[in-house]
Amino acid sequence: MRPGPVEFWFDFISPYGYLASLRIDDLAARHGRDVQWHPLLVGVTVLRVMGLKPLMDTPLKKDYVPREIARYARRHGVTLRRAVHARPMNPLPAARALAWLRAHAPAHAKPFARAVFHAVWAEGGDVVERDELLACAAHSGTPDALIDQAIAASDAGALLRAEVQQAIGLGVFGSPFFIVDGEPFFGVDKLELLDEWLARGGW
Amino acid sequence: MRPGPVEFWFDFISPYGYLASLRIDDLAARHGRDVQWHPLLVGVTVLRVMGLKPLMDTPLKKDYVPREIARYARRHGVTLRRAVHARPMNPLPAARALAWLRAHAPAHAKPFARAVFHAVWAEGGDVVERDELLACAAHSGTPDALIDQAIAASDAGALLRAEVQQAIGLGVFGSPFFIVDGEPFFGVDKLELLDEWLARGGW
Repeated sequence: MRPGPVEFWFDFISPYGYLASLRIDDLAARHGRDVQWHPLLVGVTVLRVMGLKPLMDTPLKKDYVPREIARYARRHGVTLRRAVHARPMNPLPAARALAWLRAHAPAHAKPFARAVFHAVWAEGGDVVERDELLACAAHSGTPDALIDQAIAASDAGALLRAEVQQAIGLGVFGSPFFIVDGEPFFGVDKLELLDEWLARGGW
Repeated sequence: MRPGPVEFWFDFISPYGYLASLRIDDLAARHGRDVQWHPLLVGVTVLRVMGLKPLMDTPLKKDYVPREIARYARRHGVTLRRAVHARPMNPLPAARALAWLRAHAPAHAKPFARAVFHAVWAEGGDVVERDELLACAAHSGTPDALIDQAIAASDAGALLRAEVQQAIGLGVFGSPFFIVDGEPFFGVDKLELLDEWLARGGW
């Protein structure tokens, strides 16, 4: 029996989530694992549930974070064309569309999410308006009609809320966050540890 | 010329700081680097300057952190005999003594700090009262007279404040925190990255 998937949560506004998204599928595949990509809203988990401030509104951390992200990007040969802002893009339209695709056209969910991440962080664009969502759909081979259905769907918001509530119920709070076989890993810094965990079957 | 040291900041109440303290000197030595151990007070940096809550008062994170720490301890064969509490030991007496030793008897600073960390996290004791500080001195070969001087010294508090202010000026905020050749690394998760940084001479 194929072992269970790596569950991967991220917010499109999170550069750490983007950096993790570039590595997690290859990493998991080396251990015979699939990856389930789940939208998360750190505005709900970090700000509302945890009662913390946005990273970029936090003294000291706001100076450290861009430096750490740039260093990580250099290490992995990734070019970031978007600065880490205190007031980020509104992630809701893309996250709602992803939640809807996961429920109604799951084969398109991950390619679409990759395209959104790429548009936001590799190209420095926003993915908020219909034409921006459609551009991501085009890049990922997702039919326009699906995105228009997701935008118009009355259940997209509820599906996203359900994803976020389920995540919170599992103890997920940040981006990226991983759970494999019930074991939680928070942060892009944990990818090497997760790799080791999968190789050793835990410890 | 010997390359500059790794600067290492920690709070005695931080289990992540303790876990890092067990590895940092060997890691740095492999790259021909010394390590300077600096007391930090996360009650000042995290709570006052950053305006955040204690980890163990933060929803979701308070459930994750003990699990992550236990997993890390298992990975490195470390036995922790102290739970991570929302209301930790008062770190001030030990931190003041360490600041005083750094200024007046620097050869004793690191052995004393190791003994404090061991008493707190490997033995589960408090290091707050004179007899507890003296027990750490005994374990580290620090003369009792030095600890009594540190306790009585009028400048110990000022020396500690100066350490913490200098750290904040350098952008240091958490425990553990490392700076090498001007490059900052936050968190015990960064030890492998720091190792790679030192091996490659940066990137």
